[in-house]
Order: sequence, then C-alpha cells, then structure tokens
Amino acid sequence: MRESVAARGERTLLEEIRRLVPAAGPVLWGPGDDAALLARRRHPLLLTTDALVEGVHFRRGWLSPHALGRRAFAVNASDVAAMGGRPLAAVLAITAPSALPAVDLRAMVAGVRDAARAAGAALAGGNLARARELSLTVALLGEAPAGAIGRAGGRPGDRLFVTGALGAAALGLRTLRRGPSIAAGEAVRRWRHPVARLDVGAVLARRRLAAAMIDLSDGLLIDAERLCAASGVGAEVRLDRLPQARALAPLPPARARALALAGGEDYELLFAVRPARVAALGRAVRGLGCPVTAIGTLTRGRGVRLLDARGRPVRPPARAGFGHFGGR
Amino acid sequence: MRESVAARGERTLLEEIRRLVPAAGPVLWGPGDDAALLARRRHPLLLTTDALVEGVHFRRGWLSPHALGRRAFAVNASDVAAMGGRPLAAVLAITAPSALPAVDLRAMVAGVRDAARAAGAALAGGNLARARELSLTVALLGEAPAGAIGRAGGRPGDRLFVTGALGAAALGLRTLRRGPSIAAGEAVRRWRHPVARLDVGAVLARRRLAAAMIDLSDGLLIDAERLCAASGVGAEVRLDRLPQARALAPLPPARARALALAGGEDYELLFAVRPARVAALGRAVRGLGCPVTAIGTLTRGRGVRLLDARGRPVRPPARAGFGHFGGR
Repeated sequence: MRESVAARGERTLLEEIRRLVPAAGPVLWGPGDDAALLARRRHPLLLTTDALVEGVHFRRGWLSPHALGRRAFAVNASDVAAMGGRPLAAVLAITAPSALPAVDLRAMVAGVRDAARAAGAALAGGNLARARELSLTVALLGEAPAGAIGRAGGRPGDRLFVTGALGAAALGLRTLRRGPSIAAGEAVRRWRHPVARLDVGAVLARRRLAAAMIDLSDGLLIDAERLCAASGVGAEVRLDRLPQARALAPLPPARARALALAGGEDYELLFAVRPARVAALGRAVRGLGCPVTAIGTLTRGRGVRLLDARGRPVRPPARAGFGHFGGR
Repeated sequence: MRESVAARGERTLLEEIRRLVPAAGPVLWGPGDDAALLARRRHPLLLTTDALVEGVHFRRGWLSPHALGRRAFAVNASDVAAMGGRPLAAVLAITAPSALPAVDLRAMVAGVRDAARAAGAALAGGNLARARELSLTVALLGEAPAGAIGRAGGRPGDRLFVTGALGAAALGLRTLRRGPSIAAGEAVRRWRHPVARLDVGAVLARRRLAAAMIDLSDGLLIDAERLCAASGVGAEVRLDRLPQARALAPLPPARARALALAGGEDYELLFAVRPARVAALGRAVRGLGCPVTAIGTLTRGRGVRLLDARGRPVRPPARAGFGHFGGR
C-alpha cells in the first residue's frame, strides 16, 4: 500500500500519472508528449517544464553557473523543438542553498536569459526559494504556427531519421563523473552545451515532413520505444547506420555503440517520415548545417529491434538509458 | 566577491535579477510583477511560476498530499488573479526522494489536477525527477482578455482595498509548527486550503476598477510596499480598518494585528482604486461572496505608513513578513 516511488518504477509511475491527467479543456495533448499542445484560435501554444537538480542532473564543478542556466533552458527548448515549435517565453524557478554565492545565482539567471534570447524567446519571470539542494526548473511557452508534431503519428513503413551525431554527451558526462580528461574535451563540451534543434524541428513542421517526433534525452533506445509506443508501432534500427559522434572514435566499438544507442542527453531529434516524403526531406534540410541520417524503419508490432549491417538481430546493451526511479 | 545569497539578502538579489532581465521581445512586463504579461494579438497571455519546497514552505505532516497539490496550484493561480487574469493550463515539476510513497505522489498530481479543473484550467504536463527534497513547482499559463493589471498603476489619492480577512493562514502555519491544536482548527484549514481570488480579480480587470494590484503572499506590509515601490508612491494604512480573520479573535489584540499585517500566505488581493471608481467597485463586488475593505490611501512619497484609529503614526512590528534569504 505504501510502496515507494523507487519500488514502483518510473515507467509505471508515469503511466499512472497519464491516466490521472487525461487531456482536458483547452489541452489537446496532455502529459505524455514532449510538450502540451494548447488549442488556440490561430497559433497553437506549447507548454513544457523540465528541471535540473544538483546531484542528479549535474554537480556544480561540472559546468559554470552560466552554462548551467543555458542548459536549463536548452533541455526545455529541445522539447519545443521536438514538437516543431518555437520558444516564446520562459519562467525560471530556482531553489538554492543559503550558502550559494550570489554571483553564481546571477550567472545562472543570465545563462537562462542568454539562451532564451539566442532562441528568439525571453526570460519572462521566475521564483527564488531556499532549499538544501540547488535546482533550476524552467517552464517554457512556445507556439507551433505550422501545427505541432506529436509522438503518435508514426505508421509502419515510415523511415526513421535522427539529427546530428550521438553519444558524445553521454561520454562527456561519464568523463566528468570520473574527473577531468583532456582526451574527452570535445565530449565534455557537448554535454555542457546542449543545443536544441529548433531550426530542424521548425522546418519539419512547416513542410509537414515528420509524421512523429521526439527529442533524445534518455537515449535513442528508450526514446525510440516511446515514439513507437505512442504510435502503436514497432521499429527496426540498423546499428551500423547510427551516426556516432567523432569523440567516440577512440573507444572500443561495442562501447561506442552502447553510448550512441543508450547514452542519453544528446538532445537530437528522432522522427518518422513517410516514404514518399524522404526526397523532400533531403532537400529541406540541406543548408541547415545539421546532418540527418536514416537509421531504420517503423514496422508493425511493438518495440524496437536492433539489427546489424546484414539485418541480423542484435541484443540491446544490458543497462540502456536513464531512469530517475529505476524500473524503466 | 563570493558573498552568499543569504548574506546578500533576498530584496537585493531580486533587484539585481530584475536588472539582469529587462522586459524584452514579446514580454511586456518581465520579472517583478506577479506574472509576466506576453503581448499577443487579442488576448494577452500571463506566465508565472511558484515552488513549494519541503522544509521551507511545508512539512509533509502538515497537510495531505492532495492538499499539497491543490496548494501548489493555488499559489500560482493567485498570481494570475492578481493580474486580473484567468488560468488556462499548468505544468507541474515534482522533485521527490526515492522513498516517497507512490500513492502520495499520485495524490499530489491529482491535487494539482483538481485545483486546475476547479479554476477552469487543465494540468497539461509535467516532469518528475529524483531529489533529496520533495518540491512541487507549478508554472501557470493564463490569459487576460480584459487587459492585465500590474503593480505600477497606483497614483497618490487612490484608495487601497483588500479582499477577505487577514491573518488566519499565518496563525494556522504557526499552529502547525508547534503541533496540533483544536482551538486553531479554522486557521489551520485556511493555511491548508488557500483560495485564489480569481473571480474578484477578473471583475476588477473587466470593469477597469483596479489601477494596481498584488496578491498577499508575504504579508500585507511587505506586499503593500512592493505595490508602492512599483507605482512610485507611498501609502497610509489604517490599522483599525484591517479586516482580521475571526480565528484571530481569541488572541491578544497586538498579536492579532501583527498576524493580519505581516503574517503572510493569505493570498488575498490588495488593490488601488481611483476615488471616482470607488462607488462602482462597491456595486461590482456585490454578489461575489467576498468582502472588500478600504484600508487606506496611496500618497506621495515612499513607503507604507501605519496609522491608528485617530490617524496617529504606529511603528510596524519588528519582524514583518517572510523572506527566503533574510535581508528583506
């Protein structure tokens, strides 16, 4: 009866919460998508929130206070990007221990402000409260002038694409956990400075190229499973086609592949495209400065199956992706 | 150089943050008002966020998980009420220790959902993260179809009004800190179940009755000073006219007055009305089921001066209101 959240497991909890809170009133898509879509006359609005908690998502020595603020904005902007939207305004709730240097607090706020400006949005307000743990919770309002892209629109036969290259952020995070390393400088930089793929997301929405989309926060494998579950489909992913970050090149191939597949925090976009739209996708993303790679296909059935270069099934790595309360 | 946030003081910090983040882009009023006002074609939007942190704003034994969720929504709805707006959609970020009972987590989410529904809004999404401390951070999107009411519109000569009765929530909080007491049951109930004055705020906005408005979260004295500072005016407040909650009746008069004046967490509305609009105010609030009391006048100069029944100056209580990092 009094089972803990840890014992219950994150996936179960989130499903229970989804059942508690069905979409209602002006909300078209409720909890369960990257951002909520609110019905408004012309421009649908998006609303999302994401928190960075000290000791869970970061330690203070891992990045500057300004980079922490930028990161708090970016992880939210990525949710808006995954809906094909653009950010309008953010609010920032900080909880801070009394001993936090005031100069660090100001730098965090400036980091959120600067990241918001760079994305064409504004930091509009916030809240400051005392706490034992430092945390930054951003809520981001966006709009989807061309209509929003959810997770549920995928169909069997759609091609699965991913932006950018995978695995560097996860390598950077592991490097920071173990202590500084010159060799992994590029990977650490990638973890410290995630970039929301707002331009790509907006183009995919405007030209109606993506049928379903999600951003990669918890690792390709977990997030692909989420997209599949929402769309009621399965997927085949070709491991040899995963775009691996250059920073992974020095690693043993199996380790590099595991990071690219399940590392998390890349904040790239994973999306499904109807076969007839693949050529148009190629033309649309040219000139955006962001590679887009075909990595597989949506199928009938359930779940994500991994294939090698010859199309043979491959078992997923034992511990894939990140969950806050275990239990996946 | 590395002065802590506690040493710097909350008021100084918030002023510094305000200078860091001026209103920009689509944001008309930035940090410093109850909610941010976003310029949109027809209906201006409001965006605000507020957090409840365990050990700072509440302890778990003080209220049920469901009431905690309702409270997390209500303190945000009060900010929207203070702008004369109505809530549209909320997102909820929870940080929770692993040992939190899953049933409590679900009850908190249901509390936010139910409070949102009761206010005509929807809980649209959220985020769940592990942390040592339990916290609920709500961000609330609202709209101000009749235009928003800020803090800065007060002028010398305006009459100052307050909704409801003051001091019960603060008495309830003090009672909970000391342990259960039957005598203060009504006060405890008031603390546990704050009600945002959405109906009154909306009427004041629709009929253009309030020139400036703020909600009472940190105590009348502090919040009146905020309204005065934003409007560039002073105020005279008649202590004998403060509407004291019935629950304060058994207390010594000086203690009751101090709670009504500086207790905090009442979530009533304080607003300024032009003298020519006072009669219209009386007609407008009739039938809303919420008393509205004239407590003073805005003046030239700065700061809030307290007067007794004969108009003689009274010194404010020594420790007035609540600040997270001291220093006022």
